[in-house]
Amino acid sequence: MIDIEEAYDILFDNVRPGPVVEVELRDALHHTLAEPIRCDVDYPPFDRSTMDGYAVRSTDVRDSPVLLTLVGQIPAGTTWSGSLGEGEAVQINTGAPLPDGADAVVRVEDTQLVEDGARVRIETAVAPGRFITRRGTYIAEGQTVIEPGTRLTATAMAAAATAGESRPRVFERPTVAILGTGDELIAINKRPQGAQIRNSNQYLLEALITSADATPKLLGVARDDRDALREKITGALQADAVCITGGISMGAFDFVPEVLEMCGATMRFRKLTIKPGRPTLFATGPDGTPVFALPGNPGGAFVAFELIVRPALAIMEGRPAAAPKTITAALCGTLAPTSARRTYIPARVTEETRDHRVEAGATQRTVTPLSWHGSGDSIGMTSATALVVRPPNAAQVADGEDVAIHVLEAS
Amino acid sequence: MIDIEEAYDILFDNVRPGPVVEVELRDALHHTLAEPIRCDVDYPPFDRSTMDGYAVRSTDVRDSPVLLTLVGQIPAGTTWSGSLGEGEAVQINTGAPLPDGADAVVRVEDTQLVEDGARVRIETAVAPGRFITRRGTYIAEGQTVIEPGTRLTATAMAAAATAGESRPRVFERPTVAILGTGDELIAINKRPQGAQIRNSNQYLLEALITSADATPKLLGVARDDRDALREKITGALQADAVCITGGISMGAFDFVPEVLEMCGATMRFRKLTIKPGRPTLFATGPDGTPVFALPGNPGGAFVAFELIVRPALAIMEGRPAAAPKTITAALCGTLAPTSARRTYIPARVTEETRDHRVEAGATQRTVTPLSWHGSGDSIGMTSATALVVRPPNAAQVADGEDVAIHVLEAS
Repeated sequence: MIDIEEAYDILFDNVRPGPVVEVELRDALHHTLAEPIRCDVDYPPFDRSTMDGYAVRSTDVRDSPVLLTLVGQIPAGTTWSGSLGEGEAVQINTGAPLPDGADAVVRVEDTQLVEDGARVRIETAVAPGRFITRRGTYIAEGQTVIEPGTRLTATAMAAAATAGESRPRVFERPTVAILGTGDELIAINKRPQGAQIRNSNQYLLEALITSADATPKLLGVARDDRDALREKITGALQADAVCITGGISMGAFDFVPEVLEMCGATMRFRKLTIKPGRPTLFATGPDGTPVFALPGNPGGAFVAFELIVRPALAIMEGRPAAAPKTITAALCGTLAPTSARRTYIPARVTEETRDHRVEAGATQRTVTPLSWHGSGDSIGMTSATALVVRPPNAAQVADGEDVAIHVLEAS
Repeated sequence: MIDIEEAYDILFDNVRPGPVVEVELRDALHHTLAEPIRCDVDYPPFDRSTMDGYAVRSTDVRDSPVLLTLVGQIPAGTTWSGSLGEGEAVQINTGAPLPDGADAVVRVEDTQLVEDGARVRIETAVAPGRFITRRGTYIAEGQTVIEPGTRLTATAMAAAATAGESRPRVFERPTVAILGTGDELIAINKRPQGAQIRNSNQYLLEALITSADATPKLLGVARDDRDALREKITGALQADAVCITGGISMGAFDFVPEVLEMCGATMRFRKLTIKPGRPTLFATGPDGTPVFALPGNPGGAFVAFELIVRPALAIMEGRPAAAPKTITAALCGTLAPTSARRTYIPARVTEETRDHRVEAGATQRTVTPLSWHGSGDSIGMTSATALVVRPPNAAQVADGEDVAIHVLEAS
């Protein structure tokens, strides 16, 4: 029985990033970058107009109003091959490259076409560089756009595309085998008889693994029999990681460490001083494959996944080793004193107006523990967006006091 | 030119939920529920032991220590068909059904087996109901487990599975066509020449649409030609919704409203008093298909997606019509006064220790505007997790003051 800090030390020592692969950029979404993405051009690649108007030489318009001769037109997407001489202007659109010779743009609303469009009357002076984004303002050729270890989100995809990175090198998504155990588990479309329990953990874990950017692989349920379990675990060890959930049968669960050792696995930890989630086991297979045996009760499986499995999968995906972050929120309700185990309570984070503050509309993060009946209750934790974290032997907490929470990643 | 509140009125009047379909539970992840999920059994389905120990009649152990006769054994997953008589006990495991006649459980650590296991010595008295979760404690048969309009997350999957809902009725995910416009757009693996620009918006929108639980459909780029655009838009209107991004060419962009009208679409709004994102157009096709024409610059496309397209897709997916929520955060840095347009600034939300507060470790949400060069800059917005929202004609904001933000959904 070890505490959660020690568990992280063991976990981070025994889980390694997966292989690096090169993929099409669009297939790299939500993968973690293995090598920096550098921009292969200055961006923007030319001095660019930020307005519709006229490209001018700023010295020509210093004493506006002045009349300039219109010598060309540059819609976005086109270039103008000439060079702007003294007393000349070129009509330019937003996004178009500034022509040679020009050093500023006058907005169309500050101008007037005259002489059937042969000349343009410039009403205002402009400083050099006005309404221009200089080449390389956003990024210069060769600079790093995205650092390795970054998870590629939508805005990162846009940056990578701009940088010309069509085949980034990323960490492969791990495949995670899901294996239930216990003769009492039945399919969810069956009505439980006697002591039977629907296999809700399979659905919980499949969704959690998906939300952790990994690929779930359903291996069904191993019956309470050493040989059956051994066969299933041998198959599961072909995946990149394994999540086993016990039934709620103590007898059945006890087979797992024994059979894992028969399969050549090394036990790393077997029990944690947390509630729920105490019987959480971490082992590594003969090739180092991480194996997690989670409690059979849904609350324990959920909490153990969030605390242990999700950080492990993040490492396999190439992200930094890190425990879930703790932040604080104002408690909505009260909390009783806790036992000697670190306690996690499914809760919902909301934003409330801070009526004690002067600023109109200022909001404050609050957290409301869910009406949850404990580790066996798969219904009461449905809308959880956070876990309230209570230290061992904590005192009671009054309404409005700060409590520590882990905000859960969207799942 | 309308403001954002008016835009939401128009949007919410013109976007409707999509069709309802029945799917396998595991395929329902991240869909929105169309009909309530009710539990088809009491849960737990029986009075359940929460401990390993002995099922007893509490009246028998009132004057502990006492000796009881051991008459059976109930591992989890099994039932015991007998009925517990006076002076009898049954060995029971966590999760197992309480036998008839028993009304409490004594923990194994408070007992001792004697006479070769024929009898058990009970050391402590227990109250009726001790260490038992009563049948139906979590939910009673027929009660609603998940309300319609709920997005099905991992914990909701567990609850639905427990309730026996193997084929929920959910709203179909919309397919969203993505169409770029502009002769200057090139594939990202080409090096831009002259006025060319890589088509980064396609990658941005594909990822944003995916993150909004919809299915992107890439239609490529329409060249700056009315006939080409008409053909592409006619094809796009076969999807459930359409996102068009202009090039940065004003000329090309101006074709879009005209061609949309040629295709039988009705204009709903054409410009918004927001920055970036002013040239955001919303129309509905002949069959009511929502069409969004977003600015060609990446900042404008990103902000317009988050403000307009994401809430519209949420409605199509069966969720409530709602503008992005505004909360507050302490500004890290300073902000200049704003123009007459409502201004959005890509930013990063972090948690900082509140050193002015007494509680050890209390944290506060802070927001740091990114080093972003404006709407054309697709690099500087890469790590945005929020948009700072500045009202029209807002004063400057000093470091540490509260500002309004939209926290962005994970993308």
